[in-house]
Amino acid sequence: MAGNSFGELFRLTSFGESHGKGIGGVIDGIPPGWFVDLEKIQQALNRRRPGQSHLASPRNEADRLEILSGLLDGVTTGTPLAFIVWNADQNSLDYDHLKNLYRPSHADYTYQQKYGIRDHRGGGRSSARETIARVVAGAIARQYLHKFGIEITAYVGSIGSIEIPSPVYPVPDSIAIEQSLVRCPEPAYSDKMQKLIEKTKLEGDTLGGVIYCHLEGLPTGLGEPVFDKFHADLGKAMLSINAVKGFEYGSGFSGVKNKGSEENDQFVSEAGRVTTLSNRSGGIQGGITNGQEVYFKVAFKPVATIMKDQITVDKDGLEVEMKAKGRHDVCVVPRAVVIVESMAALVCVDHLLRHRAYQSHLV
Amino acid sequence: MAGNSFGELFRLTSFGESHGKGIGGVIDGIPPGWFVDLEKIQQALNRRRPGQSHLASPRNEADRLEILSGLLDGVTTGTPLAFIVWNADQNSLDYDHLKNLYRPSHADYTYQQKYGIRDHRGGGRSSARETIARVVAGAIARQYLHKFGIEITAYVGSIGSIEIPSPVYPVPDSIAIEQSLVRCPEPAYSDKMQKLIEKTKLEGDTLGGVIYCHLEGLPTGLGEPVFDKFHADLGKAMLSINAVKGFEYGSGFSGVKNKGSEENDQFVSEAGRVTTLSNRSGGIQGGITNGQEVYFKVAFKPVATIMKDQITVDKDGLEVEMKAKGRHDVCVVPRAVVIVESMAALVCVDHLLRHRAYQSHLV
Amino acid sequence: MAGNSFGELFRLTSFGESHGKGIGGVIDGIPPGWFVDLEKIQQALNRRRPGQSHLASPRNEADRLEILSGLLDGVTTGTPLAFIVWNADQNSLDYDHLKNLYRPSHADYTYQQKYGIRDHRGGGRSSARETIARVVAGAIARQYLHKFGIEITAYVGSIGSIEIPSPVYPVPDSIAIEQSLVRCPEPAYSDKMQKLIEKTKLEGDTLGGVIYCHLEGLPTGLGEPVFDKFHADLGKAMLSINAVKGFEYGSGFSGVKNKGSEENDQFVSEAGRVTTLSNRSGGIQGGITNGQEVYFKVAFKPVATIMKDQITVDKDGLEVEMKAKGRHDVCVVPRAVVIVESMAALVCVDHLLRHRAYQSHLV
Amino acid sequence: MAGNSFGELFRLTSFGESHGKGIGGVIDGIPPGWFVDLEKIQQALNRRRPGQSHLASPRNEADRLEILSGLLDGVTTGTPLAFIVWNADQNSLDYDHLKNLYRPSHADYTYQQKYGIRDHRGGGRSSARETIARVVAGAIARQYLHKFGIEITAYVGSIGSIEIPSPVYPVPDSIAIEQSLVRCPEPAYSDKMQKLIEKTKLEGDTLGGVIYCHLEGLPTGLGEPVFDKFHADLGKAMLSINAVKGFEYGSGFSGVKNKGSEENDQFVSEAGRVTTLSNRSGGIQGGITNGQEVYFKVAFKPVATIMKDQITVDKDGLEVEMKAKGRHDVCVVPRAVVIVESMAALVCVDHLLRHRAYQSHLV
Repeated sequence: MAGNSFGELFRLTSFGESHGKGIGGVIDGIPPGWFVDLEKIQQALNRRRPGQSHLASPRNEADRLEILSGLLDGVTTGTPLAFIVWNADQNSLDYDHLKNLYRPSHADYTYQQKYGIRDHRGGGRSSARETIARVVAGAIARQYLHKFGIEITAYVGSIGSIEIPSPVYPVPDSIAIEQSLVRCPEPAYSDKMQKLIEKTKLEGDTLGGVIYCHLEGLPTGLGEPVFDKFHADLGKAMLSINAVKGFEYGSGFSGVKNKGSEENDQFVSEAGRVTTLSNRSGGIQGGITNGQEVYFKVAFKPVATIMKDQITVDKDGLEVEMKAKGRHDVCVVPRAVVIVESMAALVCVDHLLRHRAYQSHLV
Repeated sequence: MAGNSFGELFRLTSFGESHGKGIGGVIDGIPPGWFVDLEKIQQALNRRRPGQSHLASPRNEADRLEILSGLLDGVTTGTPLAFIVWNADQNSLDYDHLKNLYRPSHADYTYQQKYGIRDHRGGGRSSARETIARVVAGAIARQYLHKFGIEITAYVGSIGSIEIPSPVYPVPDSIAIEQSLVRCPEPAYSDKMQKLIEKTKLEGDTLGGVIYCHLEGLPTGLGEPVFDKFHADLGKAMLSINAVKGFEYGSGFSGVKNKGSEENDQFVSEAGRVTTLSNRSGGIQGGITNGQEVYFKVAFKPVATIMKDQITVDKDGLEVEMKAKGRHDVCVVPRAVVIVESMAALVCVDHLLRHRAYQSHLV
Repeated sequence: MAGNSFGELFRLTSFGESHGKGIGGVIDGIPPGWFVDLEKIQQALNRRRPGQSHLASPRNEADRLEILSGLLDGVTTGTPLAFIVWNADQNSLDYDHLKNLYRPSHADYTYQQKYGIRDHRGGGRSSARETIARVVAGAIARQYLHKFGIEITAYVGSIGSIEIPSPVYPVPDSIAIEQSLVRCPEPAYSDKMQKLIEKTKLEGDTLGGVIYCHLEGLPTGLGEPVFDKFHADLGKAMLSINAVKGFEYGSGFSGVKNKGSEENDQFVSEAGRVTTLSNRSGGIQGGITNGQEVYFKVAFKPVATIMKDQITVDKDGLEVEMKAKGRHDVCVVPRAVVIVESMAALVCVDHLLRHRAYQSHLV
Repeated sequence: MAGNSFGELFRLTSFGESHGKGIGGVIDGIPPGWFVDLEKIQQALNRRRPGQSHLASPRNEADRLEILSGLLDGVTTGTPLAFIVWNADQNSLDYDHLKNLYRPSHADYTYQQKYGIRDHRGGGRSSARETIARVVAGAIARQYLHKFGIEITAYVGSIGSIEIPSPVYPVPDSIAIEQSLVRCPEPAYSDKMQKLIEKTKLEGDTLGGVIYCHLEGLPTGLGEPVFDKFHADLGKAMLSINAVKGFEYGSGFSGVKNKGSEENDQFVSEAGRVTTLSNRSGGIQGGITNGQEVYFKVAFKPVATIMKDQITVDKDGLEVEMKAKGRHDVCVVPRAVVIVESMAALVCVDHLLRHRAYQSHLV
């Protein structure tokens, strides 16, 4: 019950540190007999990796994937799929000045307190580089979901105070999203966001933002009340990502201001199929998917590492000045889009398998 | 992996339906050798139960607790503590008209789709009456937390559009909260909220709101990265409560608009102890508690059952008019305060035990 | 991770003490939509309960079952099925003399050491009365297995030194087994066993024995290597039963004396279906069922409570004489037949659901 | 819930195939802050690896360990410890003739049936080469146990029909065991076993045997009734090892022939400490360790691959003759000694942590 596994039936166990040998994972519970396209996993890694554009961290990692087990001629065998992405560009010496410091709003202090020891190089296990394992597993999960017509689409909804007015419909395709350097499919807002990042970079400061995510094509029936509700597992998945501070689905926090008569989604029958006129429920009722689109938002705080000197304390409790140094993103939100999609994919496959176990009356 | 258990080392397994014999649970993993005050559990149940005031549902349930196992002369034995609260006031016939209908924004449709069968009487398992088991287990967990000086305090922060300007400091005591019928410790806002509920009741409509919660006295080191971060498990716990649509901790969604230099919490040394000047992190860094107060907000949608006629579909997919009928809350948020506290308590004890397992080097 | 739950997808959480209010459990993960015959559960309880014949303990418990949740008009709803069997005939005062003693080869000492407290009345949680929850859950599981043509049959293979020469083929039906007071389907041996029990009772002593069990009709493919092999979970299930000291399947301990050429089961094709000429593998290869019969043996030590005075120590470590007293079985093995069947049924359903989750490529 | 993880708080997740890139694992839940001696892990691997003597399989694998994460300067950090042993000597082409065959009493048929696909090269995931991950994790666990004075000792008790008369006391040290080529500490029996293996090799046949194991120095209180009893988890651990057919602890199967008065272990007080005069209970009562030595036996069937031609069926169900071919052990029991010890170590650490979680009343 150390917390490095996610999922029940499709379970990712993750390992690795920022400046160790690499970041990897084991997926136990992959349904057997289908071909995994490794190129698509690499594409997902490329969307996460640093150095994608002048807006992102210049750490230069090719982030090449090596599969260690679980495939035979590219086909899943039902045995554990292990993988690693080797670390390459590790300037560990860059971090020597941080060995005895606790960086503000980083996990240095809490790791030291919890474990009595920490790998200070690049944040060690607490580095967002850890999310590589999520992206690999998520990219595999998404390929499986495609077989069932399930599509996951995330994009940037806000950076700092620049926010698109509402989720985008029809849900944009990946081309519209990827042609924005900040992964915001609304060009006017995308430009503003990009400018804000550039300006904030010059200031040596950092930015947060919100990612919007849509799940289309989910069958009815996913979610296991009363605790493992579909949105509860989605929420946990998102909150487990570095820097995330909030999660809401459907009408979320703003919906609480509605009255019941305004918030309820009316059922109607459409071509013999039950559907709803509105979707403030976010595709989930009682914790179970109702066949409508599931959508949610995830809040990311600004990057804690800023290019300004800060006062902090060292391991002896003495106040020290911390000089700005190193290579860091001004805003990780665009790079986090694929992480949100990946975690959503893990939840979807896990619940698909869980639901399936109880459904069929024939073995 | 059906989803009716919560927690790893302190695990509640819950059972029961709104109009079955009762609602109960089994707690496996209670540390042995301490006295459980049953009266305090009953007090917690009283804070949750209907019919507390003219603002709440008139269902008249005494909600009396029966302990089935696990105590010897009131002291925990380390064996499973099972309990039940028997259902008494069950007007099951009241629900006959709903047998073949899908109530808008309720779980009728999704339960029917998922399981192929549902207990339509009062929502069956999807009823918020299920939360009784959470409150009992939470009240036990809180007694255990008290031994370590850990206090959990929740209150109503908003109802509809009436919202207190900020979390209340110093954290109010239970007397200040309980003397408000809506459990809002700010008297001016409490009055407005109460009037809004009364007015909305006359309209036959319903309201949602937001609950604020503070955890004080937590030790450093709780939380199991990278997936079972303390706030990720808190978030899941809250999102698993009926009607919850969102969760944020620390500066949450609004904090994403800050720059890093504004959002970071500066470490300082105070009387030889590391602390922070601000607490936008909400007491958690890297998913691990840092010894500061943990605080978070939970959004509840308005009650789906309104006293207005609605159009919906029946199980054959035909549109039907649904007449308003039955006994229901206009706003469950005041009653949900103790549920939020209870789920927070379950998370705290579970993480306390998980952390402890890895800490001591002596058996 | 306190140990009172068994199974992953079909999970029994058990509670209760010998002289508390009752013994019960919650089954989470029952597939929805099928009728549960409560009379059959009662019949299973009757096969376990004391006072069945002059050979068994005279504790007079009707062991009547009360279902607390999970059924609607007798049909499973997919929600947790909770149940309790209320304790009736509790002569708790009978145990006052044992309050400060550690009975030899009982769990008094270890419970006291582990938990620092114990319910001394009738063994508390360590009493074999706990197995009531297993029998109820097992009886439900067996009804589900019947839908798939899976039959579980256990019987007594030995008591003390009286042992049938080999497992009985064809597998005997329940009538043949139940007409033996000791549940041994070989009449000549049954008589000898009965006489041995009667004689041993007069001596104030007790007996152990071995139960044989056959699982017929299992599909191929059950079992989850490399750790949750089908026989590994069967073994754990059996070893978790009170008084069990050993488990073997297929040719077991005696098969290790064979050479590979003698032990191997030759595959042959029979009417287009792969089968084996022999079945020393016990229906399992690599931890996965191969479609042949699964069979195994379970060793039960003699009852620890004897009608002879014994020397032991009290809680202060002082040696004391313990007077024989109370009501106890000379040999629990005949009553344990249904417990073995029940635990086997739990394993079968759990693995059936686990296998199913990964099998179908359609939701 | 695919079955490739073992343990709750100290959890090994294993991966890899016989002829894939390697065999590895991730251990999540290692207590932080202690030095891991990698040389000792290598020594354990050397005891498992093929080619140790003329009695073992000639597959020539150096089995060199690479640690992928979790250590900082050799010290555990509390983060997942991942490792791999790369496969080197893979003559995959050797297995082409087996691609479409089902080898008798191997897992070829069941893997094909379960997953619809299998890696036929050297048995793929079902190969005993998988146990490398167990040995690495077990060697780490044993180092941790040493800190608490817990020692695990296994040796060969029988091969074929040659069996030592009883477990060896005092428990032999590793030197006495390792100087026997068959790892039997009784020289007279060791010689006979060795000769039997040599003779059987000439016959092209194979042998099974029994491993005895002793756990010394365990504290009282390990084991989590009612399902996760200490011996139940030990039993599952052993039964999950390739080729294991049976498990018994304490007096085991032979003890069932005793009467209660013969089998009971009398408590006595010795220098103020409670102990027992005999230990037929095998150090466990009610599923909880009582501070005495725990001992048990594990039965291994003879190796299924024999150097004789056999008849079997192919994937089309046609009978075919299978020619003897390849490199295989006559008897794996001596090499399995370290695997038994390793799995026992995993159970001990896991239960040590589980017990600890509920014990201390101070965080």
